[in-house]
Amino acid sequence: MSTRPVAAIILAAGSGTRMKSDTHKVLHPIAGRPMLLHLTASVAQLSPERTVVVVGARREQVEAAVAPHGVATADQAEQLGTGHAVAQAEAALDGFTGDVLILYGDVPLVSSATMERMIERLHRADAPAAVVLGFRPADPGAYGRIIATSDGQIAKMVEYKDATEAERAETLCNSGLMAVRSGDLFALLSRVGNDNAAGEYYLPDIVMLAAQDGRKSAVIETDAVEVTGVNSRAELAALELQWQLARRAQAMADGATLTAPETVWFAHDTQIGRDVTIEPNVVFGPGVSVADGATIRAFSHVEGASIATGATVGPYARLRPGAVVGEGAHVGNFVEMKKAVLGKGAKANHLTYLGDVEIGPGANIGAGTITCNYDGFFKYGTTIGAGAFIGSNSALVAPVAIGAGAIVAAGSVVTRDVEADALAIVRASHQAKPGWAKRFRAMMTARKEGK
Amino acid sequence: MSTRPVAAIILAAGSGTRMKSDTHKVLHPIAGRPMLLHLTASVAQLSPERTVVVVGARREQVEAAVAPHGVATADQAEQLGTGHAVAQAEAALDGFTGDVLILYGDVPLVSSATMERMIERLHRADAPAAVVLGFRPADPGAYGRIIATSDGQIAKMVEYKDATEAERAETLCNSGLMAVRSGDLFALLSRVGNDNAAGEYYLPDIVMLAAQDGRKSAVIETDAVEVTGVNSRAELAALELQWQLARRAQAMADGATLTAPETVWFAHDTQIGRDVTIEPNVVFGPGVSVADGATIRAFSHVEGASIATGATVGPYARLRPGAVVGEGAHVGNFVEMKKAVLGKGAKANHLTYLGDVEIGPGANIGAGTITCNYDGFFKYGTTIGAGAFIGSNSALVAPVAIGAGAIVAAGSVVTRDVEADALAIVRASHQAKPGWAKRFRAMMTARKEGK
Amino acid sequence: MSTRPVAAIILAAGSGTRMKSDTHKVLHPIAGRPMLLHLTASVAQLSPERTVVVVGARREQVEAAVAPHGVATADQAEQLGTGHAVAQAEAALDGFTGDVLILYGDVPLVSSATMERMIERLHRADAPAAVVLGFRPADPGAYGRIIATSDGQIAKMVEYKDATEAERAETLCNSGLMAVRSGDLFALLSRVGNDNAAGEYYLPDIVMLAAQDGRKSAVIETDAVEVTGVNSRAELAALELQWQLARRAQAMADGATLTAPETVWFAHDTQIGRDVTIEPNVVFGPGVSVADGATIRAFSHVEGASIATGATVGPYARLRPGAVVGEGAHVGNFVEMKKAVLGKGAKANHLTYLGDVEIGPGANIGAGTITCNYDGFFKYGTTIGAGAFIGSNSALVAPVAIGAGAIVAAGSVVTRDVEADALAIVRASHQAKPGWAKRFRAMMTARKEGK
Repeated sequence: MSTRPVAAIILAAGSGTRMKSDTHKVLHPIAGRPMLLHLTASVAQLSPERTVVVVGARREQVEAAVAPHGVATADQAEQLGTGHAVAQAEAALDGFTGDVLILYGDVPLVSSATMERMIERLHRADAPAAVVLGFRPADPGAYGRIIATSDGQIAKMVEYKDATEAERAETLCNSGLMAVRSGDLFALLSRVGNDNAAGEYYLPDIVMLAAQDGRKSAVIETDAVEVTGVNSRAELAALELQWQLARRAQAMADGATLTAPETVWFAHDTQIGRDVTIEPNVVFGPGVSVADGATIRAFSHVEGASIATGATVGPYARLRPGAVVGEGAHVGNFVEMKKAVLGKGAKANHLTYLGDVEIGPGANIGAGTITCNYDGFFKYGTTIGAGAFIGSNSALVAPVAIGAGAIVAAGSVVTRDVEADALAIVRASHQAKPGWAKRFRAMMTARKEGK
Repeated sequence: MSTRPVAAIILAAGSGTRMKSDTHKVLHPIAGRPMLLHLTASVAQLSPERTVVVVGARREQVEAAVAPHGVATADQAEQLGTGHAVAQAEAALDGFTGDVLILYGDVPLVSSATMERMIERLHRADAPAAVVLGFRPADPGAYGRIIATSDGQIAKMVEYKDATEAERAETLCNSGLMAVRSGDLFALLSRVGNDNAAGEYYLPDIVMLAAQDGRKSAVIETDAVEVTGVNSRAELAALELQWQLARRAQAMADGATLTAPETVWFAHDTQIGRDVTIEPNVVFGPGVSVADGATIRAFSHVEGASIATGATVGPYARLRPGAVVGEGAHVGNFVEMKKAVLGKGAKANHLTYLGDVEIGPGANIGAGTITCNYDGFFKYGTTIGAGAFIGSNSALVAPVAIGAGAIVAAGSVVTRDVEADALAIVRASHQAKPGWAKRFRAMMTARKEGK
Repeated sequence: MSTRPVAAIILAAGSGTRMKSDTHKVLHPIAGRPMLLHLTASVAQLSPERTVVVVGARREQVEAAVAPHGVATADQAEQLGTGHAVAQAEAALDGFTGDVLILYGDVPLVSSATMERMIERLHRADAPAAVVLGFRPADPGAYGRIIATSDGQIAKMVEYKDATEAERAETLCNSGLMAVRSGDLFALLSRVGNDNAAGEYYLPDIVMLAAQDGRKSAVIETDAVEVTGVNSRAELAALELQWQLARRAQAMADGATLTAPETVWFAHDTQIGRDVTIEPNVVFGPGVSVADGATIRAFSHVEGASIATGATVGPYARLRPGAVVGEGAHVGNFVEMKKAVLGKGAKANHLTYLGDVEIGPGANIGAGTITCNYDGFFKYGTTIGAGAFIGSNSALVAPVAIGAGAIVAAGSVVTRDVEADALAIVRASHQAKPGWAKRFRAMMTARKEGK
């Protein structure tokens, strides 16, 4: 990485009208993380001295999102164009000397490698005034075109509407992303005018102004997905899909089997091991790691969970934050885990709620078991010892401890600790009423028939 | 809309052999509604005086489906061609004077706007004898071609097999749909002959017959999806997909986030608000409305339900008809609601069955709660007051009322009403048998080893 | 089918590095069955005298998989090319005289019909020395080309890298699959040299050697999907998708409605009847048959199960091996069945675990019912008679028998048999503590506020 100081300006002042949302556009998520935080995470890899997000409306939302990441915001009260937006970051960069990356909050998937390439280019021998990130989309459509020499020196940048037919035939398009030295940036920006149809200050004009000073700018290229922008929910979904396609391919390349990759959704930080099998229809929320050789069966929903080697999860398992599934353990259908540790080789296979519980190795949790961890005010914990056997349809009322090797009889509501190797049974006596059902049926049938 | 009287004839006499079904082809559903009812609903927007479905086999199925919508059926005993089929509706339209739309039960997605355009065209100054609905498919294939002037007057209609090479090069195809004045329609039809290879009476021949009388007919165009027909289950699935693609796009344009739109299925009448989030794999059945700001999490199945602002549903929630989820309420995983009202801010988060129940604001329904609403003969209701707390794994045997602020202890089977602010506890006493589990294990291990 | 003796050699010695797996490549599954077993099943249709799999590393895995199918393995200690690999099977075919098919374990979807065609071709009047299976992929890329006359006689086979521009323009590619008489095969192979860049013995060289003897070889063609190979998890997923697309199309052609075919996954042996409806997101594991008129609702997971006419399964039903759903029976949401028979018209609609149980016709299993079939050592059975009614949230502790027409009261834990028409009730007495909840709330609120 470059050792020169780096700062990033992220433009996020657009109103995002087409999103039709009360949430700021750049806070809508891709892969379970707000778009803006994808960008700040990539920027963070460059160890920037400062990162400034330029915001218009809903600044408080953006501020709340980025503040924990040491990112500042600057206000753009009026929307007077990209040049004007960048200029609003000047105060926040006061005293900073180094390279400035100009990014867009709604162009979230630019990689740190690409950012790094932009900065490196700025420091090559030909010392360009600005580095512009270009791309070649399948359909160049109405994107602004970059007219460049074969060695990447920019001859001209032109908006599509102003372009000649020959210029429109160019396929290299302007993503809007730039790297510029701080000294150059604000000096050039101060000379940008707004003498155009929209009355706006355009950032790309700095390339032309530098050229007037006899300084060349350079373009480097990247692939179109990386600079895809989001202006509507449909575009958000389309970019989410692009992200997922890439992530699924990576998981398979790393040695996981995805029976139906088109139905597996990863989060931005999902970790998947080798020889992991993921059946159709699995959703990963943030904070999941799956070790080698584990199996995630169909219809599972997993977030904030750690799954060890050889464990089997699902089908229909819901793991919530704090779920820890031990080596070779089984979590079966219609089972929910939250802040729950299932020890090595332990099993909870059917219709169970495990909350705030530690379960020892080899324990067996019967079908329909419920840990009663909440009294309406506080949450309480349960411990279940190694090798314990919890009979089906039991309720364990926390705080409660079931000792190692203990057995809880089916259908028990356990409110006291059970000592190791003991049996606990909480059950009323059996009453049999011979013939009662027959009489009841006769009576109800008559009632139903209106007699 | 036109103020002239309108009638619609819907042809549905085809045998539908390729469907391989005991159900009449036009009753197979798209978006949870039989194809034929999509069509009658669109026709109904024109307030038609009469709508007649011409049916061959399985008339009783069609009759049962359309009768509630005030739609009549007419019999086509023999399948002698489209012209013959339309003629079978003459008796049902006896005394009707106005415009007649001719539609097809297996071409279900024609919009009322397009129908309206057809009728309007019939009344323009050039007074065409018939208005034909044309379309330009991606691959015109073997569709009949319409040779028309640039202003939409039909020069010739020709079956593909009879077309010259020049005619086949035309891309405007005949959908078969028509609008004709009632007076013209049956008069022209009476002159259609069956002197052709199939020995059938062809409806399009009326255009040629009118031309022989010196009257022009007109074509108007629509997009191909609208006039896509269904002849097999694969085509049914393909049209369902087209419908879903359009509906998903609409939901996103209206301001809903669909994380994975390709895995969300709407019904024909689903209402989705703004800033609604829908995670992957959600199925909507008929009769659902989702208010602004609600979240439908993954793997939810929702039909006949109303979901209020800020509510969270799922993952794995199943809402059945009569489910009402209040403002900010939570319905969690493996929870089923049927004729169940969950008050504002109330929660039922885990493994619960709520049937025939009214739950007050702020109540908390513990994991594993079951409302026992059925005795094998009748259904009974349960009420749970505001702020009540139902302990986990409880069974509430209806009819029963839990008062406001009451608490039901975990694992209770409640058969009597619980008064407000009271505690109800139904629980046997705890028996501990120290060392029992150890002895049991020793015995069973020996047995397993065959000792 | 040919009446001549047939043997098959399946090459499976590749290291499969790109799979990044501890499992042998050819044992990775398509449609729930290892690739290799797809191939041996197709070969088995030809009633071969012998089938030999040539294996390198992980021979024991392959042996364990094929041994139950009467298939032998041969060792290829060193990887010296396809010709060398085939030669390793010579000992295993000692004494065999007939036709030999040469197949590839990672090209799993070759049909028995195609294999049959290859053998038939070998015996036509022109008596080719070898029959090569060719295909024409959408993009011929770097496949080896077959230069053939229009009647299928091979003029030349050439590796892409050795091909002239004219040869590369040929679209007929070599799949590598061959049929050769046993007498010819090993005689020709013994003459194959390894005088090439890789120092390998190439199987296709036998075509050239035969030509030197004045004997022609023939090519027959098949479609590209059938000879698609698998070298990575991504290619495995892609071939799985191809298989599923074909199977879905077949199910629809046979008269099943798939609302969203792209979300239904079949296993290799799934049997689906006519007028079956399958909603979105259904996963079939091996061993399933669904009779005419049954409905499989969304989010169901079905393996080893038999579903009778008119039955309804799901949504969210999980049927495991041994599940038998009777005529018109209902299995509802969050219900698991394993070795469980649900009689005609019986219902188990909500949150239930049914394991090792026989349920009679017309019985009603209440919400939250659990069959307790396991004591940590053995499994035990439950029987529920015709027309019995199991109240909600009951636990039936096996071994136990509930008689016909009996009623189990809600919330009962049943450990004794219940006689026919009797009521069984196991329930503690109701205790009411007026005002307790109010006092508790006051106390806890104070505690929460830290008072």
